[in-house]
Amino acid sequence: MRFFSDNAAPACPEVLAALSAANQLDTAYDGDRWSQSLDSRLSELFETEVRALWVPTGTAANCLALAALCQPHGGIVCHREAHIQNDECGAPEFYTHGAKLMLAEGPGAKLTPDAIEAVVGRIRDDVHQVQPHAISITNATEYGLVYAPQEVAAIGALAKERGLGFHMDGARFANAVVHSGASPADLTWRAGVDALSFGFVKNGGMSAEALVFFKPELADASEYHRKRAGHLLSKGRYLAAQILAMLDGDVWLRNARAANETAAMLADAAGERLVYPVEANEVFLKASAEEAAHLRGLGFDFYDWAPGEVRLVVSWDQDADAVRPLADAIRAL
Amino acid sequence: MRFFSDNAAPACPEVLAALSAANQLDTAYDGDRWSQSLDSRLSELFETEVRALWVPTGTAANCLALAALCQPHGGIVCHREAHIQNDECGAPEFYTHGAKLMLAEGPGAKLTPDAIEAVVGRIRDDVHQVQPHAISITNATEYGLVYAPQEVAAIGALAKERGLGFHMDGARFANAVVHSGASPADLTWRAGVDALSFGFVKNGGMSAEALVFFKPELADASEYHRKRAGHLLSKGRYLAAQILAMLDGDVWLRNARAANETAAMLADAAGERLVYPVEANEVFLKASAEEAAHLRGLGFDFYDWAPGEVRLVVSWDQDADAVRPLADAIRAL
Amino acid sequence: MRFFSDNAAPACPEVLAALSAANQLDTAYDGDRWSQSLDSRLSELFETEVRALWVPTGTAANCLALAALCQPHGGIVCHREAHIQNDECGAPEFYTHGAKLMLAEGPGAKLTPDAIEAVVGRIRDDVHQVQPHAISITNATEYGLVYAPQEVAAIGALAKERGLGFHMDGARFANAVVHSGASPADLTWRAGVDALSFGFVKNGGMSAEALVFFKPELADASEYHRKRAGHLLSKGRYLAAQILAMLDGDVWLRNARAANETAAMLADAAGERLVYPVEANEVFLKASAEEAAHLRGLGFDFYDWAPGEVRLVVSWDQDADAVRPLADAIRAL
Amino acid sequence: MRFFSDNAAPACPEVLAALSAANQLDTAYDGDRWSQSLDSRLSELFETEVRALWVPTGTAANCLALAALCQPHGGIVCHREAHIQNDECGAPEFYTHGAKLMLAEGPGAKLTPDAIEAVVGRIRDDVHQVQPHAISITNATEYGLVYAPQEVAAIGALAKERGLGFHMDGARFANAVVHSGASPADLTWRAGVDALSFGFVKNGGMSAEALVFFKPELADASEYHRKRAGHLLSKGRYLAAQILAMLDGDVWLRNARAANETAAMLADAAGERLVYPVEANEVFLKASAEEAAHLRGLGFDFYDWAPGEVRLVVSWDQDADAVRPLADAIRAL
Repeated sequence: MRFFSDNAAPACPEVLAALSAANQLDTAYDGDRWSQSLDSRLSELFETEVRALWVPTGTAANCLALAALCQPHGGIVCHREAHIQNDECGAPEFYTHGAKLMLAEGPGAKLTPDAIEAVVGRIRDDVHQVQPHAISITNATEYGLVYAPQEVAAIGALAKERGLGFHMDGARFANAVVHSGASPADLTWRAGVDALSFGFVKNGGMSAEALVFFKPELADASEYHRKRAGHLLSKGRYLAAQILAMLDGDVWLRNARAANETAAMLADAAGERLVYPVEANEVFLKASAEEAAHLRGLGFDFYDWAPGEVRLVVSWDQDADAVRPLADAIRAL
Repeated sequence: MRFFSDNAAPACPEVLAALSAANQLDTAYDGDRWSQSLDSRLSELFETEVRALWVPTGTAANCLALAALCQPHGGIVCHREAHIQNDECGAPEFYTHGAKLMLAEGPGAKLTPDAIEAVVGRIRDDVHQVQPHAISITNATEYGLVYAPQEVAAIGALAKERGLGFHMDGARFANAVVHSGASPADLTWRAGVDALSFGFVKNGGMSAEALVFFKPELADASEYHRKRAGHLLSKGRYLAAQILAMLDGDVWLRNARAANETAAMLADAAGERLVYPVEANEVFLKASAEEAAHLRGLGFDFYDWAPGEVRLVVSWDQDADAVRPLADAIRAL
Repeated sequence: MRFFSDNAAPACPEVLAALSAANQLDTAYDGDRWSQSLDSRLSELFETEVRALWVPTGTAANCLALAALCQPHGGIVCHREAHIQNDECGAPEFYTHGAKLMLAEGPGAKLTPDAIEAVVGRIRDDVHQVQPHAISITNATEYGLVYAPQEVAAIGALAKERGLGFHMDGARFANAVVHSGASPADLTWRAGVDALSFGFVKNGGMSAEALVFFKPELADASEYHRKRAGHLLSKGRYLAAQILAMLDGDVWLRNARAANETAAMLADAAGERLVYPVEANEVFLKASAEEAAHLRGLGFDFYDWAPGEVRLVVSWDQDADAVRPLADAIRAL
Repeated sequence: MRFFSDNAAPACPEVLAALSAANQLDTAYDGDRWSQSLDSRLSELFETEVRALWVPTGTAANCLALAALCQPHGGIVCHREAHIQNDECGAPEFYTHGAKLMLAEGPGAKLTPDAIEAVVGRIRDDVHQVQPHAISITNATEYGLVYAPQEVAAIGALAKERGLGFHMDGARFANAVVHSGASPADLTWRAGVDALSFGFVKNGGMSAEALVFFKPELADASEYHRKRAGHLLSKGRYLAAQILAMLDGDVWLRNARAANETAAMLADAAGERLVYPVEANEVFLKASAEEAAHLRGLGFDFYDWAPGEVRLVVSWDQDADAVRPLADAIRAL
């Protein structure tokens, strides 16, 4: 049984059905009826006027957002362990034409105003130093921690005070919404977020993420940038259709809730072994090499994360029956 | 009936079936069984060792190829009406970090060694002028003309003599193979091509193109560049599966043959009205504004291309019965 | 006697004297008294509030200006034979992060609103095509023609109407001011120019050009970009001092007047041989290979420009006595 | 008396004299006799065949070097407090098209193989992470420490083993040569360095630094990049002449020796107050706010560096008599 990554999971049935339903002649690029309805559908969800672009990857969503918020000579404050810093092969630098990521600290890859100030405050205000233009946080974080609306808002206030753009990498935004119980609006623009990478792929999608601009005018240049980056698919309706299918009937929340719940089963089993509280669908576990080998011997696959630490990720499609054997095995360690 | 673009057509059934078949847990990114078999499958097709990367758009394929063949301070010779120059919003400049497109002339967007020499030959060999690093041709061209293998080889010889990289934009490569009767190998690497953007989307695919490197070592940096550009999809198996499904049983040739044949029906009906010989699935037609309006009045949709000229594109899924009414209407003009 | 280029000439005595005078301890970068007085000195000259940055080359001035006026996904309309297109090795593409130069036509490298419209007017207003963001003209042009204020203003009006930035490459701005008799203000911002590369090096300077922003706020980002491009010299006072020395007592006009006058001597001698009217310090002459060889045999050096055409450039330091022998030799051909 | 920066000092008389001597007609750009002799003159100094480019700033030298050694998708290991990281406004990212600086630790801004390994060793070898392509060290460091030849060689061995390029920022290379007593060759290419930013400006130059490639072929692309970056001055002879004037008669060593010696006077006076050993011309001193104010009251100017810490820099032109009063004042604190 694999607990490597939610990227390894299949797409959910609603997504496949939507692809079939969209498999008809329509206008190319984003002129089709599905793409054309994204703005209004997401404006409704977020209770404000937004503009949204589909893209095939979270990296594209993140980096188009960052390029919209940061000039080439600026900097983006993010956590030292942020996905944009560690796992995108320099894509932010490519899209922003060389902006600098400014690395802040915090347990569980979570930022606070103080952590950001510790980075920003020591930058001299002169042309010799890269000046900060934006902040990027990940919600849920790379370690599965969830920012509550007030935590986001505290950072949003700092961003506003300092005139910085504010981006949220929401590769696991659905898990964060479910855990926090907050509305999508409260977790984003009402807390000062300017642009959200709204992830679907890790949550049962196939190949579509939404880049949501809460300042709609930011989308103007971003639409050109998306094209210029090769991310305007000629049959874009198949991306829009995936997103719409997951919004319909709150499939996105259903999938995330499922994953959060099974992760909670593992957390419960893990007890003192937990490295971080489990708030989304990732479980970081203290386990010796022998214990990890033992679990693998039982047929469970996962990544070693650090010495004495392993990472388990559950996906939308792994139900309680599928996860219980692992929970039992952890408890029995 | 729509004759706007082959991008507007649906995906063929084999592609949808392949998505369903691939909808199971596997390794993320390109570690899955489908992605892993691309190199060998395409090496077989091209009768030589190649390395291939899937990407979601032709623009991504083109521009990753160009970046592999041209340094930022170099230039790429292409036709004045090439897709990379006119329809990709500066994506080549983005991916190559500012290389310059050097525009050559030729009827039907087709290049010849002489046309290329006319551009390259007037460049002073000093650091003040951008030096050419690569040539890019489109086969079939933006006007539906097909390069025969010996035409490609003549350009390939020039490229070799001048030490230039050689890229082929094969958004409609299948149509070119069908029309020329040449083998994929003869039309590409045996004629000196270093990298091919092998198009599937216009030919019945959904969201996958293949970037094929005939100099396999070029893929080393390109794999990083793909990631860095946000084109390494986390569930890449759904792209690889599309390509494999279209290679299996020569679906790609079947689809292209169908489109070429119905385009030929239109060409036959058009007679003297043709602006260019019809060799692929595009038909450029002289038609007055009144004639165009008349055709539209009959229910046919298409683009005006230039004053007194319209463009008709047929797709893999438009069979003889579907196209005949338009052919008849053109004949009756 | 050399008539290759005004870049080959020495610096004028006032410039050398200024270097000596500035050779004392002061604040680094542009914090010194010379650099700090540039804005006011140039504001006075241009009769409006400007902000000015010194840079060591015209290419740096041009490209910082273009980057301030054009986003990476935009285009810059310039003449097919503009220096920025042909002689800067792609520097505009480097500084703008890949903006596209859009080439317009016109005799003597001179643009008109019609010529610009011919380029801009055929661009589709969609994300697939690079949209124009700016216009760049060279005054005097690469062929030594001078735009009159009303000619600049006509282009300025078009720029304003279309929302385009407007840059003037003034590598030989002094020659243009002298020839036109117009005030620096009339030739630039009153005619709609946003940024001027104000050249000194070809006109007797050593290593300093001024980038003048008539929209002062454009300098904000440009100051960072200058640093980022490595053009903020740590001992910047030596650049500022050169510029100030050439503005003092109108040395810049004296030098340009001298060069224009001796060029006029050559023009007078050339008569029917002139390819273009001589309005600045460049003379393009019809001359057979034999005639060119004959002149070289007499000790005159110059560039062949095109078959049957040579280019002669006179510099600030070549007085009537120095140029008369060439004039006589041309007359005697 | 100012101890702010060696950038604030004037140019030495030999440099000014060289400018006057070079003030004659010659070939533009780098075709003149001074520029043409740089390669051989520096090859002689370094006892091996080198190619050298003059540039007006250390930032330009550093970043052209880094771009020659690191592809856009790669990384450059440098110290957290390196000038390229902290004081060049992202110029390395601009010139390399977005390469990532990878920050290593070490007292006094000095790197060791272990410190580099600590950064490089934790990078996964996959396309998701930026891979290291180059190492950059500063000699003397930003805190005035000098790498001995064997210390450079240890890093050079690591670079070779891992296939990394190796750059030395030698803004104060002269001070390092003087302090170490090593030959320029032993301190660079014999220790594995591929490219050196050979600084002259801080050491009594006016506006010229040399970029020295010990792998001559690296200069091929770099010459285009220099032009493209606007750093090929049209009257380049004035830069080459400065460099040659400082190499002649070992003016560069004389100047550096003078500065090192007066810095040593300060170090001697400072005793226990020193933050780092003084090996070049920078002195970092523990001093309370009151003590700093006291020194300033006596007429000495300098930067506060950190709480309780000030930086004093002496220049080539400050002799023992000029520095003694400060030494006495420090001793008397």
